[in-house]
This record gives sequence, structure tokens and C-alpha cells, in this order.
Amino acid sequence: MTDTATPVNNGVNTDFLLQAREALAAQPEGANFKWRVTNTWVNGTHSRTKVDGFFGLGAEQQHRTEFEYDGDHPELFASEDEGATPVELLLVSLASCLTAGVAAVAQNREIQLRSVSASLQGDMDVRGILGADPDVRNGFSHIKVTYNIDADATPEDIKALVAQSAKRSAVFDIVTNPTNVTVEVA
Amino acid sequence: MTDTATPVNNGVNTDFLLQAREALAAQPEGANFKWRVTNTWVNGTHSRTKVDGFFGLGAEQQHRTEFEYDGDHPELFASEDEGATPVELLLVSLASCLTAGVAAVAQNREIQLRSVSASLQGDMDVRGILGADPDVRNGFSHIKVTYNIDADATPEDIKALVAQSAKRSAVFDIVTNPTNVTVEVA
Repeated sequence: MTDTATPVNNGVNTDFLLQAREALAAQPEGANFKWRVTNTWVNGTHSRTKVDGFFGLGAEQQHRTEFEYDGDHPELFASEDEGATPVELLLVSLASCLTAGVAAVAQNREIQLRSVSASLQGDMDVRGILGADPDVRNGFSHIKVTYNIDADATPEDIKALVAQSAKRSAVFDIVTNPTNVTVEVA
Repeated sequence: MTDTATPVNNGVNTDFLLQAREALAAQPEGANFKWRVTNTWVNGTHSRTKVDGFFGLGAEQQHRTEFEYDGDHPELFASEDEGATPVELLLVSLASCLTAGVAAVAQNREIQLRSVSASLQGDMDVRGILGADPDVRNGFSHIKVTYNIDADATPEDIKALVAQSAKRSAVFDIVTNPTNVTVEVA
């Protein structure tokens, strides 16, 4: 009855996640997920991406609703600014992955969270994407994530919590390590 | 009068981008951009990320409007599914970057686009994020991007167009190459 013994509730069902870990360790084929999105060009640098279903636990799965995201370049680049810049969307992805992890790890460690916020900054020399200097990379030179967390824990425990979230984060792994991408034309 | 000599119009101001390339090659300090987002935990694995301003061309810049994105885990993981999964948001980011590039490169090569769409799939063994097997990475094992493009160009020119977009893409670079990320607690 550990559930009733602890008053900690961050809204994450860690019992389920621990059971899933056991189940998928025994039946690894269910762990093969395929995450999918479909993107459609609107005009200029503006496009819209839909997120609807994915494959996991051996079957096609649906989100509760379809999610839709607009991406564009800012007016500064003579675009229409109809959505966040793609590199900002990457920071959105990283932030949401790390914060979900903070809540899950806190639940598992019985740390009650009161508030969690994070500021992310990605530094970029845009001479890379403009092709002005072949020695400048296209992407971020560095990303800095700064958490502000109010929780029932010591500063050391909060630091350890954030570190564990990064260690388990899918997006943190994708960004910090090379990920193979194939781009084809049908 | 090259603008009036060509009927190609994909909605991208490539004259501006070429001028920016010249200007920033001469004054590289203006090319240092800082892209920012702020993320706030809502409950469980659900968080909300706001995209508002950034730094570039030596000054603070504002988007036309503030953009807001919800991220969450799906019901399959005992979450509330209040937004796309963070790894899906990463695919959104990659898709919007590559498609903006397709439009920009097509404009520069005087290829009229009629329609552009892309399907993205990221394969992931979720035993990584669950900590079920230390040999399984957290992130995608592979991402496949498939474009369908209707344009006034040969299949070879369309393939070259997509390849050039990937070559210049900030997000493609961030995903395929290692990017340094620092995670701190304030």
C-alpha cells in the first residue's frame, strides 16, 4: 500500500510506468514505437504539421484529438511569422520532454512538486543557414536550459532530479547525440 | 529586373535572404541569434511552452504574436494526452524546417512549387526511456522523411532541391549531429 502511505502526487502514474518497464523487458517487441507526423506546405516558409496517430504496443494508436502546429520564419527574415520558427519548436520539444521527466522522476522519488518552470536558450550563428560561411554550423552552437523548481526537497535533491530527467529524456538524447535521418522523395 | 522576368513565386523573398547573407558576412556580430522559449509544468507529464521573443541582428525581436504549445504523454502511458508527445514535437520541428527550406531553395532555383507534403516517422524502442535495457538508447533509432512534391521540375531537380534543403537545415543539423546542451537549476 505504498500509494496510500505517501501523500506525494505530481499527477504521474509511476506504478504504471514501472509495470510497463517489467512487461516490455519481458516482451520487447511491444516496445517498438513508430511516432509519425504529416507536414503540408502552406506558402513561403509557412507549413502546418499534424500529429494524429502512432504505432506502439503492437498496434496502431490514436491521440485523443489531432494536434496541429504551424511553423514559419519571422518577419525579420522577410517571412510572415505565422508560427514559431522551427528551431524554437525544437526547444519546445526539448522543454516538454525534460519537464515531463522532472514530474515523473519526482513522483518516483516521492518529491512533491509545487511549481516547475524552465527557460531555454539556443545560440545560433545564422551565417550557417544562410550559407555565408562554410565553417559555421547550421544548428545551435549551444542550448542552455535553466530550471526554477519549488518542491518539497533539498536543493541537492532537486538538482539530482533534473539530472535524472535529462538522463532518461528521449529528446535530450536525440539532440545531444547523432540521430540518423533519411530524407527521400516519393 | 529579375523579379519580373521570372513567374516563379513560392512566397519566399530570396532577394532579401541573399542580401542578408552578404550583409552578415560583412558584419558577423549581427548573425548571433538567441532563440528562447519558456516552459511551465501544468500537471503530470503535461507542460506548456511559450514562444515570444528572440535576439538577433543585435537587438531584441518580437514575434507578431506569442505562440503556445502543449506537450504531454499519451493515454497509453497513463497520461492525459493534452498535447503532442515531445518526440512528435521534435518531428514537427524537423518537418517545418525542411519544408521551409524546400520552398526557399525552390524559389532560388526558379522552381515553381504546386504542392509539398511530407510524412515523417521516428522509430523508437521505448525500453530506453523506461530504463528497461541500458543498451537501448532513449531517442529515435532512425527518422525517415518522405516528401511528395508537385512542382514545375524534373524528378532529379526535385530530389536535388530536397537534398539542398536538408544540407542547409538548422534542425536537420541539430538532430543528425551532436549539440551541446547544459541543464541547470537556478
